[in-house]
Amino acid sequence: MIEYRNLRVALLGAGSVGAQVVAQLQKHGEELANRAGAGIELIGVAVRDIDAPRTAEIPRELLTTDAEGLIVGADIVVELIGGLEPARTLILEALNSGADVITANKALIATHGPELFAAAEQVGAQLFYEAAVAGAIPIIRPLRDSLAGDQVHRILGIVNGTTNYILDRMDLEGQSLEEALAEATALGYAEADPTADIEAYDAAQKAAILASLAFHTSVPIEAVYREGITAITGEQVEAARRAGYVIKLLAICERMIDADGDAGVSARVYPALVPRAHPLAAVHGAKNAVFVEAEAAGDLMFYGAGAGGVETASAVLGDLVSAARRHVIGGPGIAESTHGDLPILPIESVTTRYQISLLVNDQPGVLAAVATVFNEHGVSVETVHQTVSSLGAEGESATATLVIGTHEASEASLADTVDALASNDTVRAVTSVLRVEGSE
Amino acid sequence: MIEYRNLRVALLGAGSVGAQVVAQLQKHGEELANRAGAGIELIGVAVRDIDAPRTAEIPRELLTTDAEGLIVGADIVVELIGGLEPARTLILEALNSGADVITANKALIATHGPELFAAAEQVGAQLFYEAAVAGAIPIIRPLRDSLAGDQVHRILGIVNGTTNYILDRMDLEGQSLEEALAEATALGYAEADPTADIEAYDAAQKAAILASLAFHTSVPIEAVYREGITAITGEQVEAARRAGYVIKLLAICERMIDADGDAGVSARVYPALVPRAHPLAAVHGAKNAVFVEAEAAGDLMFYGAGAGGVETASAVLGDLVSAARRHVIGGPGIAESTHGDLPILPIESVTTRYQISLLVNDQPGVLAAVATVFNEHGVSVETVHQTVSSLGAEGESATATLVIGTHEASEASLADTVDALASNDTVRAVTSVLRVEGSE
Repeated sequence: MIEYRNLRVALLGAGSVGAQVVAQLQKHGEELANRAGAGIELIGVAVRDIDAPRTAEIPRELLTTDAEGLIVGADIVVELIGGLEPARTLILEALNSGADVITANKALIATHGPELFAAAEQVGAQLFYEAAVAGAIPIIRPLRDSLAGDQVHRILGIVNGTTNYILDRMDLEGQSLEEALAEATALGYAEADPTADIEAYDAAQKAAILASLAFHTSVPIEAVYREGITAITGEQVEAARRAGYVIKLLAICERMIDADGDAGVSARVYPALVPRAHPLAAVHGAKNAVFVEAEAAGDLMFYGAGAGGVETASAVLGDLVSAARRHVIGGPGIAESTHGDLPILPIESVTTRYQISLLVNDQPGVLAAVATVFNEHGVSVETVHQTVSSLGAEGESATATLVIGTHEASEASLADTVDALASNDTVRAVTSVLRVEGSE
Repeated sequence: MIEYRNLRVALLGAGSVGAQVVAQLQKHGEELANRAGAGIELIGVAVRDIDAPRTAEIPRELLTTDAEGLIVGADIVVELIGGLEPARTLILEALNSGADVITANKALIATHGPELFAAAEQVGAQLFYEAAVAGAIPIIRPLRDSLAGDQVHRILGIVNGTTNYILDRMDLEGQSLEEALAEATALGYAEADPTADIEAYDAAQKAAILASLAFHTSVPIEAVYREGITAITGEQVEAARRAGYVIKLLAICERMIDADGDAGVSARVYPALVPRAHPLAAVHGAKNAVFVEAEAAGDLMFYGAGAGGVETASAVLGDLVSAARRHVIGGPGIAESTHGDLPILPIESVTTRYQISLLVNDQPGVLAAVATVFNEHGVSVETVHQTVSSLGAEGESATATLVIGTHEASEASLADTVDALASNDTVRAVTSVLRVEGSE
């Protein structure tokens, strides 16, 4: 066995990911030392309650409730507590003491990233966060390093496994949203309070992180437009299927040119129609995938497990080996790059294609009336499908459903169009408005 | 504009990739300098013939025929000549002078990797080669860095776009191998001499590189078992479709336990049956994808363009920014890790599942006779499908086709089984033997 300099690693938090990090280090510590060129010595695991039950066994002598004390003298600190505080304060203390820090904390990076990256750069330390987005899938390094010589145009990400599971079950099994959510909860994919997932707060945090990285521009979480999946109905899923689409909750990061010809960045999350032939349409169950459109590289996709204790531990341990190698080599860490500093564009300036479903009176002139509304608001119609919905009871006119696909239109024009449609005499109801993302 | 220290970059070769590297550097040089934290100054482009036509314009004053002279004084050398010599000698000269080297040369890395990596480590330089495998798809960094804390069990890679295009056309359009190859040639996917692609020499080089990286073990190209696609027939493609499979040329890197319980590595390339539901089955046209099965991360897939001048330039420029950052930070490069040093196992010790098609006499006792042959050689039969092929002319017995799916069996046992079947009285012909890879 080769003798290496030992690097002292402090672990904060021993939940499902932390317990697996300890287990993997115990199982493969020597192998990881060989890869890193340095011994990796776990000096302690800070927890709130030493006697709490754990998903994997941790030697009792490693456990401590004194996180601050543990950080002192650590070369590398792994933060797996989650949430904003005390995680933020502890990471700042670790960075200020010169330790490299590894975190899987997406909420913290999305909320306080700039402060933390600045603290790291100040002392030449590095903050690693591969596990914060899409769990085990390597996406941070590919964006920061592999694509560093390219220009990312757009990212379409399925970055929340819970909602992908729910939408996939609705699509494949015809379940309702409630049934699919209940199943996801029973299987442990969804938490008791599923709000963060189904209202897309989780996906929005990941969108902020991916956009910041891809566009070298600090994108705050508040700037991410967000719609969850709670309004998605079985009828919409079924109509999407008939039209050759599947509904996916997408985190979208896009470099755009605004009306004045200036470059800007959009980060947004919403359920969208994805063509069946698109690689993202084949991402089933709770899997995640990040689809990247780059100027030179063309289309790339990164696919795998987006969550899970042992899967996320893989990303944490990859960062740990990188941090250890960095300590062996010396020199400052790679600073987070925000030189791009592009303006963040509001959702109103985004342009996409749409599919709008209308319940209309089945009478002559309806199509012309509806087409006029689109035309008046500068929204160009690409396709129209009409189906008779009901022949109408006595004294009522028959109704029909119109499904209208548009060319690229701005959110602002589209919103105005929908308002005008809703108040148009020939339209009984606007039953569905969905964006279409991803080329056929 | 920020003023940076300038790094001097020498480019060797100006084919389709080299010309695009120059074009992208001219277009995005300032942006790349911001990302790298260093100016990137292209000091020259070494070519064989200054007046040869190029796919993108290169300023004439940059062109030189003196590659050795250009290397002197370069901080970073980008080798895009291809082939073994003079690429090998020039890279060694560059590394020995302390320059970092970036190459897209898969043949060279697969053949002389250990020599080149040793030369780099000797002087603390680094050899980058993201573009050598799967073109634009980031796979080297994910394997070396992101998965550095995990144990890779297996890699299944579609790493040759030409053969994937051919097999995809055979599958989707019912074309013959010859028709699909002719189309691939007409579209520029296949070279005038397609041997390197269709005989899988190209894929074998990539398998050697991926296996070396994934298992921290130097896997020489000679140790890679190789079968091309030239024997694949339209009948096999059609039979695969009926059975729920698609035939893909796979580069397979596997960590195995041999008969004595010792760990070893297998690297091999052959056309295999992939279940339709497997993510690799959805990789169409000339696209590449690398599917990785890891202990903690689970299943991952990396998908994108595997070739093309501008796509490959994306990977080269990503390496260029990484090399530039490394120069800014200082310290030695990350050495290639071969501490794993596992034995390379021969193809005979590999175990997989098989599908074997037999043309047999349609008479009582045939199935029992065939089953006995499998049994005698220790190969366990999982499924049998029988179809009557011909009722037989007068004086001849009718024939039937038996398609036999096996459980996992060793190559050695399977080869013995096939030999015994071929000489069995009830078997007229062994019409197809294909391995099955990828879980359902």
